[in-house]
Amino acid sequence: MDCLLVIFGGTGDLAHRKLYPAVYNLFLSEQLSQHFAVVSVGRRDKTDEEFRQDAVEAIKKFSRPNSGTDEDLNAVVSRFYYYKLDISDSYGYVGLKEYLSRLDDRYGTQGNRLYYLAVAPEHFKTIVQHLKSAGMVLNDGLSWQRLIIEKPFGSDLSSAIALNNVITSVFSERHVYRIDHYLGKEMLQNIMAIRFANALFEPLWNNKYIDHVQIISSETVGVENRGPYYEKAGALRDMIQNHMLQLLMLTAMEPPAQLDTESIRDEKVKVLKSLSEMTPAKVRRDVVRGQYGGGYIDGKPVVGYREESRVSPFSNTETFVAMKVEIENFRWGGVPFYLLTGKRLPEKFTEIVIQFISLPEVLYFKELKGLKPNTLLIRIQPREGVELYFNAKKPGVKNEIIQVGMDFCQNCAVDAVSPDAYERLLLDAMKGDSALFTRWDEVEYAWRFVDNIAKVWAEEEPDFPNYPAGTWGPPAAKELIERDGRKWRMMG
Amino acid sequence: MDCLLVIFGGTGDLAHRKLYPAVYNLFLSEQLSQHFAVVSVGRRDKTDEEFRQDAVEAIKKFSRPNSGTDEDLNAVVSRFYYYKLDISDSYGYVGLKEYLSRLDDRYGTQGNRLYYLAVAPEHFKTIVQHLKSAGMVLNDGLSWQRLIIEKPFGSDLSSAIALNNVITSVFSERHVYRIDHYLGKEMLQNIMAIRFANALFEPLWNNKYIDHVQIISSETVGVENRGPYYEKAGALRDMIQNHMLQLLMLTAMEPPAQLDTESIRDEKVKVLKSLSEMTPAKVRRDVVRGQYGGGYIDGKPVVGYREESRVSPFSNTETFVAMKVEIENFRWGGVPFYLLTGKRLPEKFTEIVIQFISLPEVLYFKELKGLKPNTLLIRIQPREGVELYFNAKKPGVKNEIIQVGMDFCQNCAVDAVSPDAYERLLLDAMKGDSALFTRWDEVEYAWRFVDNIAKVWAEEEPDFPNYPAGTWGPPAAKELIERDGRKWRMMG
Repeated sequence: MDCLLVIFGGTGDLAHRKLYPAVYNLFLSEQLSQHFAVVSVGRRDKTDEEFRQDAVEAIKKFSRPNSGTDEDLNAVVSRFYYYKLDISDSYGYVGLKEYLSRLDDRYGTQGNRLYYLAVAPEHFKTIVQHLKSAGMVLNDGLSWQRLIIEKPFGSDLSSAIALNNVITSVFSERHVYRIDHYLGKEMLQNIMAIRFANALFEPLWNNKYIDHVQIISSETVGVENRGPYYEKAGALRDMIQNHMLQLLMLTAMEPPAQLDTESIRDEKVKVLKSLSEMTPAKVRRDVVRGQYGGGYIDGKPVVGYREESRVSPFSNTETFVAMKVEIENFRWGGVPFYLLTGKRLPEKFTEIVIQFISLPEVLYFKELKGLKPNTLLIRIQPREGVELYFNAKKPGVKNEIIQVGMDFCQNCAVDAVSPDAYERLLLDAMKGDSALFTRWDEVEYAWRFVDNIAKVWAEEEPDFPNYPAGTWGPPAAKELIERDGRKWRMMG
Repeated sequence: MDCLLVIFGGTGDLAHRKLYPAVYNLFLSEQLSQHFAVVSVGRRDKTDEEFRQDAVEAIKKFSRPNSGTDEDLNAVVSRFYYYKLDISDSYGYVGLKEYLSRLDDRYGTQGNRLYYLAVAPEHFKTIVQHLKSAGMVLNDGLSWQRLIIEKPFGSDLSSAIALNNVITSVFSERHVYRIDHYLGKEMLQNIMAIRFANALFEPLWNNKYIDHVQIISSETVGVENRGPYYEKAGALRDMIQNHMLQLLMLTAMEPPAQLDTESIRDEKVKVLKSLSEMTPAKVRRDVVRGQYGGGYIDGKPVVGYREESRVSPFSNTETFVAMKVEIENFRWGGVPFYLLTGKRLPEKFTEIVIQFISLPEVLYFKELKGLKPNTLLIRIQPREGVELYFNAKKPGVKNEIIQVGMDFCQNCAVDAVSPDAYERLLLDAMKGDSALFTRWDEVEYAWRFVDNIAKVWAEEEPDFPNYPAGTWGPPAAKELIERDGRKWRMMG
């Protein structure tokens, strides 16, 4: 836990919105070591005082409301330092090294470092190689140095392999913490608890009792100011390759042998390995891409993707993906998983829908037509919780059955604010617990899956835009699931 | 549906508290036929007008608040009539017969009769035999005459058989409607819906997934003004023989072949037939009786049972029973059902607790000790609904698991007042639907079960009183379940 958190790109958006508030909240909940300080590394001239002022403002703006006092705030940022560095200047790293050593002495951090790369991916290589050259990565048993990197981890399998080779030539796999911030979310961690800590769900979690699964992550926002990044990524790389596949893995994985990091990751990777291959024919049949045109969100007109700033007016980047995937193992054979994600959709939420089978047409199912199947809904965000829909007698003197719901809300109680994903992830990285980070082979198999889709798409000109902002994507997404006799939950 | 409802004992408590309000509410919800009238039969001199006035007051007092208008009330009681009869006077029945015929003409009720015996059981024989002698029971295909009788149906197997012989010499089994008003309760009807209309529960409803079941019906009241009746009955005959066994049957029955009356009753009786025999040794080991002494209810002192009015100061009548029963079939072998009922207990509720098995000691169950097993709670009264307790991640940056609950409340919504049991039961009897009434063999097997217990008790002097009012019964009731390593839910 004792370490310096060294943030490359410490003057940027991510650091201010997520990392400094996370550090602050960890301090408030007394999770931080006394032997801890933060060093922001950036290009610009800035004094420690100026940086601290920026950090205070960011924390006030982005941290939870009503948390802590000004005294707390000052106590935290008194440990915040700024170091100016041109990341391509070798000599600069020598200076940084000496600077960090002096902070080690002051804070008793013993040479332990959490290097956080909050910079554009094209700088990853430069930074890690200079860290190595300057002798700043030891992991010699006396001190540890860990690397945290944000997505995107490459833009396809080959670029990811190249990037990984660079990184692992400096940091061994166990010192690399690849962030998928979805894994830091409370409800993602809850999926495993729900599955493996309940006699009620565990026996039902297979193709004998589950009809299909829907994994939906919808946004109402458009591309915002992320045009240049998003133009290259699209929904496939931005959402499917990481967050959506993580949700899929946690929902579908076999029980791990133990609850330790590697046992869990082993089972997650097995899910990716078991995905039915995305052949060109399957991509054409089971994967739908979309791009929003102009439309209305909350009654207000919004422009189409191609009219967004810093986006090509001829862009073929997808802002929507829906697909049907199958997992070829004994547990899930015959159970389709339908994934849907997109921007400029009518509502913002992320959820997993477990729809149980329909019972045979006997008893109530024979006498009363149209009974709905049981559904377990795992809500990831913004509401966090579990909802269960089942059939019960409709109150009254007639024998009618209706679907009723019950729910458990994880973040509805007044004092039940879930910690932000970054709090959990930073804390785990300090502790050396990488269970909630992505192992290389997860990245690798996710790219293999996604590349097959991207390859087919690259060969065919899409007819974009194909859905108006404020709708649930192109008609083909609806057909994708309805041709199987099923419906997206939000359209049911 | 077209009929005269003829209530013997129509000036009594049951008629005023339950029957007239039920008729009124059926009228309000437009369930009553236009061809319908009520005749109250009693000993006393009373005019129709006086009787109607009594009925209006009873309805106002005991019906749901804010239901209907004075106009509705007048419309209903305009169909209420009073007829004075000495029930042992043969000639009186001739007069009654003619009187009812005239009402038939007025209301177009075609000779159909619902004879409701709201009188003490010692009068049943007299009344049905006179009905027969007077030619008031035809069931000739042109009109129907049905008999509704309230519990107690005998006081042991032999008296029940004798009573049944009298009744069925006049009314065939299919025209006899034995009321167990618990069967009219919404949530009892819901047990079958929950079990057989949900893919989520059906597969788990057996000894592979259920550890044990608790059926609890607790009252805070004492014997009230029912001393003379209760002295002879006790909790065993008053609660176990009927209500508690009905709850047991509905919880444990196999799925019926169809949802029709006889298929359901066949399966219910099979449960009683499968109960492990109550040998004297088993009674001594697995059945606990109790009688309340003085104590406190809601902080107020109350007297013991032996001090109640019209109760013997040396009474050995039990006011509390707890027992463990086993059902010897493939579904339930190894799953104990614990029953508990009593008066002057700390809370008033009726509920069924389905406790699922504990998962094997792996994963969360290995790392985190003391995880609670999943529980499904079916609340019968006063709250009506379903609650499910399962394990989830405790919000926060640590990996902790807590039990959380979700619930569905059947009668919590503002407009969701469940109909009173008597509404449903009266309506069903008018329709000729006897699914929610007790068939003779249910009564018979229930008495067989209960008689075995009563026989053993009769031979041994109990050490009464053995629990103070306001506690959960004698210590032996706690030991009964705790020696199996389990706990009563309200004491968990």
